[in-house]
Amino acid sequence: MCRWLAYSGSPVLLEDLLYKPENSLVTQSRHARLGVEAINGDGFGVGWYATAAETPGVFLSTEPAWNNRNLRELSARIASGRVFAHVRASTGTAVQQTNCHPFRHGRWLWMHNGLIADFPLVRRELALRVDPSLYPEIEGSTDSEVLFYLALTFGLETDPPAAVARAVGCVEEAGENQGIVHPVQMTVATTDGETTWAFRYSSRGRSRSLFHSRDITTLQEQYPDNPTLHSLSAGTRLVVSEPLGDLHGAWREVPESSCVAISGGDEEIRVFEPLRSSRS
Amino acid sequence: MCRWLAYSGSPVLLEDLLYKPENSLVTQSRHARLGVEAINGDGFGVGWYATAAETPGVFLSTEPAWNNRNLRELSARIASGRVFAHVRASTGTAVQQTNCHPFRHGRWLWMHNGLIADFPLVRRELALRVDPSLYPEIEGSTDSEVLFYLALTFGLETDPPAAVARAVGCVEEAGENQGIVHPVQMTVATTDGETTWAFRYSSRGRSRSLFHSRDITTLQEQYPDNPTLHSLSAGTRLVVSEPLGDLHGAWREVPESSCVAISGGDEEIRVFEPLRSSRS
Amino acid sequence: MCRWLAYSGSPVLLEDLLYKPENSLVTQSRHARLGVEAINGDGFGVGWYATAAETPGVFLSTEPAWNNRNLRELSARIASGRVFAHVRASTGTAVQQTNCHPFRHGRWLWMHNGLIADFPLVRRELALRVDPSLYPEIEGSTDSEVLFYLALTFGLETDPPAAVARAVGCVEEAGENQGIVHPVQMTVATTDGETTWAFRYSSRGRSRSLFHSRDITTLQEQYPDNPTLHSLSAGTRLVVSEPLGDLHGAWREVPESSCVAISGGDEEIRVFEPLRSSRS
Amino acid sequence: MCRWLAYSGSPVLLEDLLYKPENSLVTQSRHARLGVEAINGDGFGVGWYATAAETPGVFLSTEPAWNNRNLRELSARIASGRVFAHVRASTGTAVQQTNCHPFRHGRWLWMHNGLIADFPLVRRELALRVDPSLYPEIEGSTDSEVLFYLALTFGLETDPPAAVARAVGCVEEAGENQGIVHPVQMTVATTDGETTWAFRYSSRGRSRSLFHSRDITTLQEQYPDNPTLHSLSAGTRLVVSEPLGDLHGAWREVPESSCVAISGGDEEIRVFEPLRSSRS
Repeated sequence: MCRWLAYSGSPVLLEDLLYKPENSLVTQSRHARLGVEAINGDGFGVGWYATAAETPGVFLSTEPAWNNRNLRELSARIASGRVFAHVRASTGTAVQQTNCHPFRHGRWLWMHNGLIADFPLVRRELALRVDPSLYPEIEGSTDSEVLFYLALTFGLETDPPAAVARAVGCVEEAGENQGIVHPVQMTVATTDGETTWAFRYSSRGRSRSLFHSRDITTLQEQYPDNPTLHSLSAGTRLVVSEPLGDLHGAWREVPESSCVAISGGDEEIRVFEPLRSSRS
Repeated sequence: MCRWLAYSGSPVLLEDLLYKPENSLVTQSRHARLGVEAINGDGFGVGWYATAAETPGVFLSTEPAWNNRNLRELSARIASGRVFAHVRASTGTAVQQTNCHPFRHGRWLWMHNGLIADFPLVRRELALRVDPSLYPEIEGSTDSEVLFYLALTFGLETDPPAAVARAVGCVEEAGENQGIVHPVQMTVATTDGETTWAFRYSSRGRSRSLFHSRDITTLQEQYPDNPTLHSLSAGTRLVVSEPLGDLHGAWREVPESSCVAISGGDEEIRVFEPLRSSRS
Repeated sequence: MCRWLAYSGSPVLLEDLLYKPENSLVTQSRHARLGVEAINGDGFGVGWYATAAETPGVFLSTEPAWNNRNLRELSARIASGRVFAHVRASTGTAVQQTNCHPFRHGRWLWMHNGLIADFPLVRRELALRVDPSLYPEIEGSTDSEVLFYLALTFGLETDPPAAVARAVGCVEEAGENQGIVHPVQMTVATTDGETTWAFRYSSRGRSRSLFHSRDITTLQEQYPDNPTLHSLSAGTRLVVSEPLGDLHGAWREVPESSCVAISGGDEEIRVFEPLRSSRS
Repeated sequence: MCRWLAYSGSPVLLEDLLYKPENSLVTQSRHARLGVEAINGDGFGVGWYATAAETPGVFLSTEPAWNNRNLRELSARIASGRVFAHVRASTGTAVQQTNCHPFRHGRWLWMHNGLIADFPLVRRELALRVDPSLYPEIEGSTDSEVLFYLALTFGLETDPPAAVARAVGCVEEAGENQGIVHPVQMTVATTDGETTWAFRYSSRGRSRSLFHSRDITTLQEQYPDNPTLHSLSAGTRLVVSEPLGDLHGAWREVPESSCVAISGGDEEIRVFEPLRSSRS
């Protein structure tokens, strides 16, 4: 329904992520290969950090990424070592900047591919679960933003995997209360500017695609003549909805129901399981 | 902070309301005379009825009214006997179509000039007071839309003045709970396609300006040579944030704390007083 | 590259043309079947006549048709007996309203699918061929608009087929002067509000697809139980880039290098051949 | 009609130029003090250089500057030592990105406040004077962009003051051929990334306002306790449509019919006089 990428590593120009790869995210905005919908033309967004300590910048637009001249201009001139980018295919909610990903709260970014099933049926119950001090910050009308504020409510800033587990558990409970069979479908990425966490999960166990790049050192050995690979630091990593190119061995699928944490060159994959409130 | 007009009477082209008067609403989008802010350039909206029985159409845009070519095209070709039009000056919320007035629910339209003071402080409490079946329809982030859904919750479709009184009472209670001194500032118009109700009220008793046109028959006698006036039916009425021109005797100020109901040629002005929940 | 439809006949709501058919134009904006490009998301436009005698209205937007709420609102409320509609896939020129089709001059509308090859190479020469009195009206940067103004220069308002033949001849000459092998690729529709002319032509003889609807009476006999068909007048006709549905026998391909003229129920197909200036 | 600023000196965040001054350019977009029109809400643009040697970036939008969230985000994160910024009030031409200033050609930027009188009457003649190799680059429909391409045609890249003099002379000749009394009204800024040239001129000798900042060293002595002034390098300069604040002695009016060249800390003011073709 959407496509996204999360980059961390050596500072690169945004255009190196968004335009230059063979199957770049901007290419995916017109012709996604793996999504249920090939077109992601209902807006886009980019979030980037100048330094990990600062509030990230966001550039959001309701226009298709493929024909946006400002995105091309900025991408050729903004470099960053931590980038979130997202192209949107609306599942019904309005096409407006406040519905574009990544969402931001303080130093945190959040983006989502998927949906909360029958969102109108659970929207109010979920909004009520959002911490009252956070509620007024909700600006848009998407399920994705509510999921972010639930995660913030449940402690995203202190223990991201646990907070997301509780947020997803909360959505599943609310959905089941309404008789919704498979309430959650998601790949999600979130970051505080230092670590990126990516989640792949769906209530029915058939989640949207998600891949992460392999250890760059291994690839550098495998492809000794590829200059692009050799210019990147050992800690460089990408998590993506679909591979940006066909380099053999470059991408590994993130398993169903798991969470990847990427920090510097370290990457840790753990099982992800929603936490119901009774267990929290 | 915004400017609006509510028209009912003989079918007219939208351009006769929006562009042709000396101090037309589109003129007011650049140079309002009576508002606290001369510029209303943060979007606009028009709602109109083909027949009273049908869902009204709405045309909403985030662009300034004064430079919007589509508005000019449509205004020259769409005629209606009941029109709501609004030019927006944001008090902080996002400039997006879902924040543009008039808002619509079924056959009802709603538009607002003013604000709920310190809206972020009361937004959640007010949203919780909205009927759960209506809550999912809220698409934007404005105080104005929440006020509309509160009025719908309190029976707008059966007794508009009472429902608005209860909605405003609800906002005043919520505001006072947060220590807000003057929670409500508003002129509001709402219609079901047959009757238009306009409200002028503020907690501190100093409301934004509001005027209604005088009885057309009197004006026709007063200005026997004015062809525009003579082409209008006896029941034609306008309610406006500020007069559209300087015709002597054409406009009467709507008194503080009052509600005007306009139905056909009948017009009734009543005192408007918020109703607190203890009294409802 | 683009998709369009030209309707004439019984007044219909725009939504009956743009949204309701199985393979409607709005559907084609996301998933065109026959085009070289499936996505036509770089803006859209609709032109319609209230009466044949009046200047047609145009509603143009740079957003994709599929997610535009104003288009949906207006389409459900504007009816017309002569409609032009177009969804755009830019071949490089800017996405802006002045590049959206249909273009208008007085009572005339014009829309185009295709391109003038290597347009930058011939743009100046073609602009100089436009009548000086018409030149200042050119507002956008497309090949399509220049082609329109060339046709107007060569007498579109008095003899449309001859004027288009001379305009196309002029483009072919200019292209050949620059060594361009196949200068013109086009399907074009133009109308004065009373007659619609549609052209299918390309310098290489492999033109974009074009279809016209068959005589409604024949279809009504063929499908005695189809109420949609029976509500249309005998003179109703559609010309389209691709069929709006799969009704057997409903559509006939417009032959290569030909012009269809549709006026009331009459429809005439003629050979179309560009006229070089030496022959004009 | 428009307002602009041209900055050169120590690298600063764009927000220090666009938002922070008391009478900043974004403030001027709503409430210009000296212009004939207080509102400059028909789009805006920013051009900036990473290094003098590179093509500058441009960020252009059709929305008012005052409510554009992307501008605020980017301004807080992009720093540059050479910035052009412009807020537009259209004199009739379309509100579209290709009509937003600054215009760019290679390493050159150009922006304009004012107008070519009766531009439709001379548009074609002026377009024909543009070098054929440059003509296809014209994307918009403004007088300002044509003036830029005339200046490029007449040698802007080698001798800017002479090229602008010839371009203006060309416009005056074309205007006089059409009986236009005062063809040119302008303040213009242009730069190659190393030197900025600003022009103040009008055919009738009553030009739009233009100011340049005084020598920073003098100001630093005059205001020993102002930290903002002391953080700027000696060579920092601003040229603006109107002063950004009320600091006594900070601004000097650029005289009528003159050109200012600013390069590093050097600033040279010369008489500006249009050159007719007979003299060129």
